[in-house]
Amino acid sequence: MDKSLLIVGVGFMGGSFALALRRGGFQGSIYGIDINSVTIDRAKELGVIDEGGTELSLTKRFSPDYVIFSSPVRTFRQIAGEIKGYIRRETVVTDLGSVKGKLVFDLEGILGGRFVGSHPIAGTEKSGVEHSFPELFENKKVVITPTERTEKGALDEVVKLWELTGGKVEFMDPMLHDWVFGAVSHLPHAVAFALIDALIEMSNEVDLFKYPGGGFKDFTRIAASDPVMWRDIFLENKDNILRAIDMYSNSLQKLRNLIEREEESALTEYLREAKQRRMSLE
Amino acid sequence: MDKSLLIVGVGFMGGSFALALRRGGFQGSIYGIDINSVTIDRAKELGVIDEGGTELSLTKRFSPDYVIFSSPVRTFRQIAGEIKGYIRRETVVTDLGSVKGKLVFDLEGILGGRFVGSHPIAGTEKSGVEHSFPELFENKKVVITPTERTEKGALDEVVKLWELTGGKVEFMDPMLHDWVFGAVSHLPHAVAFALIDALIEMSNEVDLFKYPGGGFKDFTRIAASDPVMWRDIFLENKDNILRAIDMYSNSLQKLRNLIEREEESALTEYLREAKQRRMSLE
Repeated sequence: MDKSLLIVGVGFMGGSFALALRRGGFQGSIYGIDINSVTIDRAKELGVIDEGGTELSLTKRFSPDYVIFSSPVRTFRQIAGEIKGYIRRETVVTDLGSVKGKLVFDLEGILGGRFVGSHPIAGTEKSGVEHSFPELFENKKVVITPTERTEKGALDEVVKLWELTGGKVEFMDPMLHDWVFGAVSHLPHAVAFALIDALIEMSNEVDLFKYPGGGFKDFTRIAASDPVMWRDIFLENKDNILRAIDMYSNSLQKLRNLIEREEESALTEYLREAKQRRMSLE
Repeated sequence: MDKSLLIVGVGFMGGSFALALRRGGFQGSIYGIDINSVTIDRAKELGVIDEGGTELSLTKRFSPDYVIFSSPVRTFRQIAGEIKGYIRRETVVTDLGSVKGKLVFDLEGILGGRFVGSHPIAGTEKSGVEHSFPELFENKKVVITPTERTEKGALDEVVKLWELTGGKVEFMDPMLHDWVFGAVSHLPHAVAFALIDALIEMSNEVDLFKYPGGGFKDFTRIAASDPVMWRDIFLENKDNILRAIDMYSNSLQKLRNLIEREEESALTEYLREAKQRRMSLE
């Protein structure tokens, strides 16, 4: 019999996950629950989900084999607590959240070892189910964060789901995950949001947004990301992000001081090292 | 008779300017001078320049109608001082530099009103004549910064050259230019270079550059820009950049504090405003 799946939070990520699974050959029913009924209607129209609604209690009727959390990360604990009473013993639960760490252990505390944390390293600055597309995860890394408590069977099932989407699975410790992605993803988002904020402040005299040349648009694209999603990421990964922002501020001050003191050769070296390191990524 | 043109500093920008002029129908000879003889050989092979060499004194023999400075901005004063003795009274001089401000007045002091500052708002993180291409300026803004001293005839000629390249000319006060582009272009570059520097520091524990997902590559592309070119821009536009970095640091600290104090609604508002302002650019 085909297995069924429930997506909680049918936005850009959850919608793309559903479409990617279908494209990968997933045959069972796909259900969706979202706080916004308009989202559910749109997701049905777009063929992203087969059926859905706005109440978590619908989970009982859907009786899914898999549940995927894809709402903002700070909602997961409450959703897990509510949904626990509606799912079957063998239902496997995973998520698409950008924060793992303590959240994974808390969710295991609620749901047990059938919860498996996952984080696809894929996304755009777009939000909303209407922007979903099935190729989002194709050849993208998916970081899965099992713990000592993770059930082997649940882990295997989650890996299989991700393989259907075209994602490339890697495993990582949940705490290490939050430091790494705090640095390479959450910090750049904070830096980009702050850049727009600064330009708003600086536009008191001249409207700087009239001159968006010189790489500015590419550089700040990620600042168009969903505010509630990012508020939750920043708060849920607070300690790592604060540490990363502080280390970043030191690097920026170092650059500032080289400019102020006109230390030509040290300044060139600073920029050259950054260029070389960045180019090594291509 | 066809007019001739000399490019001083035959890199990505100078090379693209030559190619764009040719494409736009410029018929005269195009000469190049660069401190690097390999660059001159390559530029000739690629058909970017007709003739060239490494000595500024060649200018006398080339006897160009136009001279374009496209080396790093802090070299312009010295080049202007040397070249002055080699050019004709009616030769028009302009530049492709990202800094105007005081530099424009200094160059007028050396060359008189036939110097006209210009800054094409076009470029990539690439450097080197081998990356030049003729469409670089197509439909891109070109900011020209005339002063009270600028000769009307020289200004008209520079505008005509830019129109041949496909650029869209705008005029701006040189001092205002440096504040505006200090904020929308130089600041983002400083922010991106500092981000790579910070990630190098943070990679003591884990090699963070192994995880370049989540928009990181797009966000930091501009940190692969030429170090010497950017050293010169940062130093030449020092006052504006220091002010912009300080205002930016305030914005980042504001965000940091909202995260630290978990001020949910103020944090959401901060991110929402940034998103809306950024989206208004599309």
